[in-house]
Amino acid sequence: MRSVNIGIIGLGTVGGGVVHLIQRHHDDYVEHYGIDLQIKRACSRSDGEAQKLGIADIFSTNWQDVTSDESIDIVIELIGGEHPATEIFEDAFAHGKHVVSANKALLGRHVEHLAKLASENGVQIKCEAAAAGGIPVVSTLEHDLAGNEILTIAGIMNGTTNYILSRMAQEGLGFDEVLADAQRLGYAEADPTADVDGFDAASKIAILASIGFRTRVNTDDVYTQGIRNVSATDIEMAREFGYAIKLLAIARNTPQGVDVRVHPTMIPATHQLASVSGAMNAVFVVGDAVGETMFYGAGAGSYPTASAVVGDVMSLADHIAHGKEVIPESEPFGHNLPIRAIEELHTRYYIRLTVEDKLGVLAETTKVLADDGISISHISQTKSEDTDTCTLIYMTHTAKESDMEKARIDLEALDSIRAVSSIIRIEDIEAWTEGAFDN
Amino acid sequence: MRSVNIGIIGLGTVGGGVVHLIQRHHDDYVEHYGIDLQIKRACSRSDGEAQKLGIADIFSTNWQDVTSDESIDIVIELIGGEHPATEIFEDAFAHGKHVVSANKALLGRHVEHLAKLASENGVQIKCEAAAAGGIPVVSTLEHDLAGNEILTIAGIMNGTTNYILSRMAQEGLGFDEVLADAQRLGYAEADPTADVDGFDAASKIAILASIGFRTRVNTDDVYTQGIRNVSATDIEMAREFGYAIKLLAIARNTPQGVDVRVHPTMIPATHQLASVSGAMNAVFVVGDAVGETMFYGAGAGSYPTASAVVGDVMSLADHIAHGKEVIPESEPFGHNLPIRAIEELHTRYYIRLTVEDKLGVLAETTKVLADDGISISHISQTKSEDTDTCTLIYMTHTAKESDMEKARIDLEALDSIRAVSSIIRIEDIEAWTEGAFDN
Repeated sequence: MRSVNIGIIGLGTVGGGVVHLIQRHHDDYVEHYGIDLQIKRACSRSDGEAQKLGIADIFSTNWQDVTSDESIDIVIELIGGEHPATEIFEDAFAHGKHVVSANKALLGRHVEHLAKLASENGVQIKCEAAAAGGIPVVSTLEHDLAGNEILTIAGIMNGTTNYILSRMAQEGLGFDEVLADAQRLGYAEADPTADVDGFDAASKIAILASIGFRTRVNTDDVYTQGIRNVSATDIEMAREFGYAIKLLAIARNTPQGVDVRVHPTMIPATHQLASVSGAMNAVFVVGDAVGETMFYGAGAGSYPTASAVVGDVMSLADHIAHGKEVIPESEPFGHNLPIRAIEELHTRYYIRLTVEDKLGVLAETTKVLADDGISISHISQTKSEDTDTCTLIYMTHTAKESDMEKARIDLEALDSIRAVSSIIRIEDIEAWTEGAFDN
Repeated sequence: MRSVNIGIIGLGTVGGGVVHLIQRHHDDYVEHYGIDLQIKRACSRSDGEAQKLGIADIFSTNWQDVTSDESIDIVIELIGGEHPATEIFEDAFAHGKHVVSANKALLGRHVEHLAKLASENGVQIKCEAAAAGGIPVVSTLEHDLAGNEILTIAGIMNGTTNYILSRMAQEGLGFDEVLADAQRLGYAEADPTADVDGFDAASKIAILASIGFRTRVNTDDVYTQGIRNVSATDIEMAREFGYAIKLLAIARNTPQGVDVRVHPTMIPATHQLASVSGAMNAVFVVGDAVGETMFYGAGAGSYPTASAVVGDVMSLADHIAHGKEVIPESEPFGHNLPIRAIEELHTRYYIRLTVEDKLGVLAETTKVLADDGISISHISQTKSEDTDTCTLIYMTHTAKESDMEKARIDLEALDSIRAVSSIIRIEDIEAWTEGAFDN
């Protein structure tokens, strides 16, 4: 039996979990799979973690010691960011090594370039951990659902924002207050931008849509709006109307192109995604044959993410250990589907206006909406207790995003309007299964 | 490019779906995967379906024409049952062909024998469709979660019974009435035994536990109880106590051995499995590293099941088309874990007694339970409207199954008791994650 040799770059939370899992399962892998996994080299900025993990003897602060080590078969890249991660991929490929990575920022923007390089060098990129942490969605899209045309990939792909929205809903608290507490508890970073502004979810849906629809969707193609503007009032009003508010990442493969976006979304309170709470993730995948499926689990964290990394390592190792060739990376992005502009979106909207408490405001705002082609399904008006303002809630019928945007500008121009406080899209969940076969 | 040649045996609902998917995706597979899938032979009892599918020219009523065809790489077995399915597997292996199958009855009982034969012949068995229809759980357990020790596999694995229980809950109807309607609508077979008595779910959990725990769990090892005895009253009472009743298949990898069983189960109404309604399936998988995951989708039906079959075919074809060797079936059942007897189960119980409406019955029944070591947490007593009986509901603290069984016999011996109408286990969901790493 030949050993399968691993080099690992990045020994943070996930890296430590990976080393621990590989050490723990070593004998089991030998016995059950005939795979002898050996960590040959490890690299990080300083050797503290390597000491703790008992791998100081194979430690280096120079990543090239890993990528250029002739004995190594698989490089695990866990440092994140674009540089030197890009150079690590490139150098690993040049040395004929496969790369397993959790780097969503890099892959969301540059997977095309990297996949091409991998292919040219006859090696593979595996990135299960980059999409939904421990939930095996990449593998499912690449392999298990190959008998399907994938119609929709949508769900909760960021644990921090779901944690914040869940606590806002449960405790009636405001965004800032919960964010501060989440930071204190370690659920949110000191700089929370990547999470709360939706960029993390945008990278993930870009990767999943690229694989699922076999077309190139770049992170920059994803319309992205975070949750900073969602208020306790919005969540409470949503509940009254039978909805929950979640930060959804949505990618739909439509005849007009790929509709791909991340934004706060109202979904029916009875929908399965509405009951996904705390830091958990859940991804809906709709295939024309299989219909609606959902995959639920931890989207982040040391061991869940390490589980995905090790799954990828083992799928490569299964071949290497048995002397079989790994099939090189193919470029599955041939479809070249157009990306639909957000302005073309047709959906329903929830609108919260803060208006002066006087007669005629309702008529005035309703007229603006009508003039801009926005048809209304429900209106709710609440007098604020300690101010001279009212809260006006409109729920609309299906309208066009560009019309809604014009209406927003026109509403803001009205003297009696203090603020267009929120506009939240109400997702048409039924549309997710459009194109599925009857069964 | 060399074509990958398929022989298909069984052209029923699923077989028709498989042929359709392979025909439909042919060009896409060539373009994106470099795989040219060709259906070379098809076999069924009569040629009606083959005519409809436009494959009458490759049709035979003799399955040996498929298994012995030298050009064929992969045999798809979709006839179900033990014979001649066993002989089909054996003959296919002898001719060096891989087998993809949805045959849960066969694999639940004989996978060990068949896996050994496949291994000896250097070929593979793939059976994603045998476990949870379209939901890719087998592949997830075999590959993606390889970095985990699997602790629990549990869920709703039979669509017919979930459909019946869902309608009973929604409409307050009795089992017989809903079953008859389900049969009329095609959700239940004319002979509903395999579904409503739990045997179908037992086969599936046997297969999943064998793969997940890498030990042999035979269908006959699974304690199995169906839903015939669940009444509208039980469902209503469960709801009052905050529970839903679902037919769960549960396999837990405990230090005392494999706890594996199928029975009606009370779970908290807020649990994700409680909201899985209609004919849908959902499987919880808990791994020590990844923690809690759930996989949701259609567990049966033509296209969902065909999706799983084609996924398996493609994973084999990916190697064959590129001239790479498929790794032969390995025997992953080495752990030889003991199976825990149901009598050793410790859980909470719901007990519904139909008793005479007279003073002293409560004291009498409570004493029997106490004498048998069953501690009570809640009691509810309801006078029946049109009879001289009362309904007594007990919810117990954790008790031992063998004590509960003794209590049942002792209760039935009481003069004042008309019937021990129901005993339903209340699942300890918390225990499913015992042994998972802290994160």
